[in-house]
Amino acid sequence: MLTLPTDVAVVNVGLPMFADSVRDQGRPVQQVDWSPPAGGDADLVAALTRVYGPRAAEIDAANAEVVRRLDEGVPTLTGVSRVSDVLPGLGGRTLLHCGPSIGWERVCDPLRRSMRAAVVAEGWASDVDEAGRALADGTVTLAPANAHDMVVPMASAIGPSAPVWVVDCPQGGTRAYAPINQGPGEVPWFGRETPAAIERLRFLRDVAGPALARVVDEAGPLDVFSLAKQGVAMGDDLHMRTQATTNLLIRTWLPQIAALPSPEREHVARFLSGNHLFFLTVAMAGARSLTAWAGQVRGSSIVTTMSRNGTDFGIRLAGSDTWHITDSPPVGDALYNAGMGPDDAAPDIGDSAVLELTGLGGPAAGGSPAVAGFLGGTMAAAAEATERFARISAGRSSRFTLPPMGFVGTPLGVDVRRVVELGIRPQVTTGILHAHDGSGQVGAGVATAPAACFEAALKELAG
Amino acid sequence: MLTLPTDVAVVNVGLPMFADSVRDQGRPVQQVDWSPPAGGDADLVAALTRVYGPRAAEIDAANAEVVRRLDEGVPTLTGVSRVSDVLPGLGGRTLLHCGPSIGWERVCDPLRRSMRAAVVAEGWASDVDEAGRALADGTVTLAPANAHDMVVPMASAIGPSAPVWVVDCPQGGTRAYAPINQGPGEVPWFGRETPAAIERLRFLRDVAGPALARVVDEAGPLDVFSLAKQGVAMGDDLHMRTQATTNLLIRTWLPQIAALPSPEREHVARFLSGNHLFFLTVAMAGARSLTAWAGQVRGSSIVTTMSRNGTDFGIRLAGSDTWHITDSPPVGDALYNAGMGPDDAAPDIGDSAVLELTGLGGPAAGGSPAVAGFLGGTMAAAAEATERFARISAGRSSRFTLPPMGFVGTPLGVDVRRVVELGIRPQVTTGILHAHDGSGQVGAGVATAPAACFEAALKELAG
Repeated sequence: MLTLPTDVAVVNVGLPMFADSVRDQGRPVQQVDWSPPAGGDADLVAALTRVYGPRAAEIDAANAEVVRRLDEGVPTLTGVSRVSDVLPGLGGRTLLHCGPSIGWERVCDPLRRSMRAAVVAEGWASDVDEAGRALADGTVTLAPANAHDMVVPMASAIGPSAPVWVVDCPQGGTRAYAPINQGPGEVPWFGRETPAAIERLRFLRDVAGPALARVVDEAGPLDVFSLAKQGVAMGDDLHMRTQATTNLLIRTWLPQIAALPSPEREHVARFLSGNHLFFLTVAMAGARSLTAWAGQVRGSSIVTTMSRNGTDFGIRLAGSDTWHITDSPPVGDALYNAGMGPDDAAPDIGDSAVLELTGLGGPAAGGSPAVAGFLGGTMAAAAEATERFARISAGRSSRFTLPPMGFVGTPLGVDVRRVVELGIRPQVTTGILHAHDGSGQVGAGVATAPAACFEAALKELAG
Repeated sequence: MLTLPTDVAVVNVGLPMFADSVRDQGRPVQQVDWSPPAGGDADLVAALTRVYGPRAAEIDAANAEVVRRLDEGVPTLTGVSRVSDVLPGLGGRTLLHCGPSIGWERVCDPLRRSMRAAVVAEGWASDVDEAGRALADGTVTLAPANAHDMVVPMASAIGPSAPVWVVDCPQGGTRAYAPINQGPGEVPWFGRETPAAIERLRFLRDVAGPALARVVDEAGPLDVFSLAKQGVAMGDDLHMRTQATTNLLIRTWLPQIAALPSPEREHVARFLSGNHLFFLTVAMAGARSLTAWAGQVRGSSIVTTMSRNGTDFGIRLAGSDTWHITDSPPVGDALYNAGMGPDDAAPDIGDSAVLELTGLGGPAAGGSPAVAGFLGGTMAAAAEATERFARISAGRSSRFTLPPMGFVGTPLGVDVRRVVELGIRPQVTTGILHAHDGSGQVGAGVATAPAACFEAALKELAG
C-alpha cells in the first residue's frame, strides 16, 4: 500500500528560488549553493571534460612544475640599463607599451598621451601634437613590451632611451625588464603629457637611471622577492600598495645613495622620498622573470601572461604563444578622488597584472589593510579576496605569507580550468586613470578579469 | 512533604576542582571562571573597596582626563640637542641612567658596563677600569633620567655630551628627551664596554648627533605618533619591533640626509642603514612627552611612569611623585640567541616601558607578526596579549589601530585598580641582555610587571 508522506523536509541544490518557495510554505529547507560548471555552457563543459578527463594527470604534473618555478625561482636585480642596450634588435623609432599588441587607432586616451610624451622625450618630436602625427602616420611604431620580456605598469610607453631594471632568475636562466617607476603625480604612466610629465621621463633617463645603475652596481645583486616577502608581512600587496617594500629598499641602499655625486644625489633623494610606489616595477620585473621561466612548461593550464593596454585584456597559457584577447574591463570596488567617478574612469590597464600570477597583488589582499580599504574596509573582506583567488589557483606560495590569515601562503598559479569551471575570475588590485581628459590618476580599485579570454584559453588547451 | 531531588545540574563558580568532581560523577556542570578580587588579600580588598566606592566617580573623571591627554597629545620632534644643553642645571660629572634612582653598589652588571663606557666616552677616565673606580668612589654621580623628563632604553647610561631628541607636546606644554638610538650590535645600551662600544658613543656625539640636528632643522617639526601610527599598521609594536616606522622616517628625511656634508653623510647613512631600531627612542621621547602632560592630573588610578634599571622595577601614578619599587622581574616568553638561555639573562631593564603606557609595545602586540613570534607564533596569541592589556586599561587609542584585530584601538591607560583587582599585570615586549659576561643582547621576550609595586600604588591612592 502506498502512503503519502505527511511531513516534508527539503534539501535544495542550486537555484535558491526553489528553496525560497518551500520555505514560503512553512517547511524546513536546506539550501546548498551550487551552479553548473562553466554556467552550463555546452562547449565549455565539453572542454572541461577533456582537460579534467584522461589528460588531467598530465596537466596536473605540468601545473606542479609551473607552480614550483613560480615559487622557487629567486628573481635577482642585477643592474639598470637602457631599453636600447638590452634590446639592441628593436631598432628604429619604436615605443614599447603595456598590454597586448595594438595599433595606434585603437589605443585608449591615457596611453596615447603617454606615448606622445615618450615621443617628445625621445626627441622624435618637438611637441605632443607633432608626436601624435608621428604615431598616427607610423613614423613611430609600437610594440608590446611583454613580447620582449618587459613589463610596464599602467599606461606606460617607453622609448629606447628609457632606463630599465634588469632582473635575472638564475634558476631558469631567464631575464626580465621593467622601467624605473615614474612616481606619483604628473607623470606619463598615469596618462599625462604635460611639460612636467615629459620632463620626468628626461629626469629618469639623464639623472635617476645612471644614478640607480651606480647604486645597484655598488650595492650588488638584490633578492627582489626576499624584500617583497618582508613587505607583504608589513601590509604590502606589492601592486596597489608598495610602501613597506619601497622603504625597505631605500634603507638597504642608503649607503650607496649617500655616496652618489652631487647634484644627482639630492635630485634622486627627493624623487625617492616622494615615491612610495618605487618598488612596484622592481617587483614586476621580478615576477616577469619567473613567468618567463614557468612559461616554458608545456601542456599546463596555468596562466603565465595577463596584461592590458586599456583597450584589450589578454592572457597566455604556459607553453603557448597564443594570446587570448577580449575587451579590457572597468575597474570595480573603486575609491575615486574627490569629484571623480566611474564615468571618468578608463578601463583596466597595464602589465602589472603579472604580479597576480606570482602570488602578489590580489592573492595577497588578505594581508593588506590598504587593499581592505577598497573592499569595504574590513580585513575579513580582504581575506575573502585571497580565498577567492585560492579557489582558482593550483598552489600556494611558500614565500609570501599573510599574518592576519594565520600566515597562510598566498595563492599561486591561476588555473584556467578552475576559472572557467567555477566562474571565478582573477581580481587585480590596480589604479584608475582618467578616460579622456589627461588629468592622470582618478582613483584605485579592484578589476575583475573578463571571462572570454579564459574560456578561449581553455578551449585552446582542450584542443 | 520534603522530596529529595532526583536529578542534579551544577553551575560552579570559581575553583574548577569542584566542577571536575561533579563532572567525574557523570553530572552536567557549567564552570564559571572567577577568582576573588586581588586574590582575596584583605588589605587590598579594603583598598579596592575605597577606590571603587564613593571615590569611583572622581577617580574615573581623573582617568578620563589622563586617557584624553595620552590619546590627543601630539608629540612633535623639534630638534636634537645635548644633555648638557637641555639640562644645564645637572652640572658636574653626572650620568643619567634608566629606571628608578639607584646607587652604584646595587647597579646590575650590564648597566655598570654601560656606565663605564659612558665615563670613558666623556673623557672622565682613560679606560673602563678607571671608570669603574670613579663610579665606585662617587667622583661620577648617578641620576635617574626619568627625573629629568628623559627616557633611556635598555641598559643606557648617558653623559652630558650625549645627543638627545627633543620632543614637545604642544597641547600640554611638556617637553621630553631620549638619546639617539645606538643601534644593534656592540653597543653600551646592550651592556657592552668594548672599545667599539665606546667608539659608538663618540660617533653619536661627534658625527650622528650634529648631522641629525641639521636634518631635523632642515626637515622641520615631525609628528612622531603620526609616523608611529603608520608603523603600527605595518606590524610594528614600536617597542620590540620598530622597523616599519624607522624606514618611514628614513624615507621622509632622505632629502635632508642626502644634503649632509661629506664624510658625515656617508657615516650617518651606513649607521641608519644598519639600524632597524632607530625609531625606538624617538617613540620613547614622544611617549614621555605625553606621560609628562597626563601625569599632571591628580587623583587618577592610571600609571604614568613605569621603568626598570635591571635591579628595581618602579612605577608612579599620575599626579604623584611617589615611586613604588620592587625587584625587576625576569623576561618571560623569551627567544634566545643560539647557546643562550634563562641563566644568562639579566632582569628586565630600561625606560622603554613608557611605551606600554601610551598604547604601544604590549598593547599593540595584536598587530605585530614579530611580537607573535615570541608568543607561540600565532596572531591569535598576540591578540590575546592585547586583550589582556585591555582588561587593565581605562581606554583605547583612537590613533593606533590594529588591522588583524578589525582595526580596534590599542588599550590605553593602565589602571592600577584593575591590575590589582584582576591580578593581570602589564606585559612589556623587550630585549634581554647577558646577566654578567658583557656580551650584549642574548634574546628578546615579554616581561610581566611585578605585582608588588601596583599593590603599593593602589594603597597610596586608597589613602
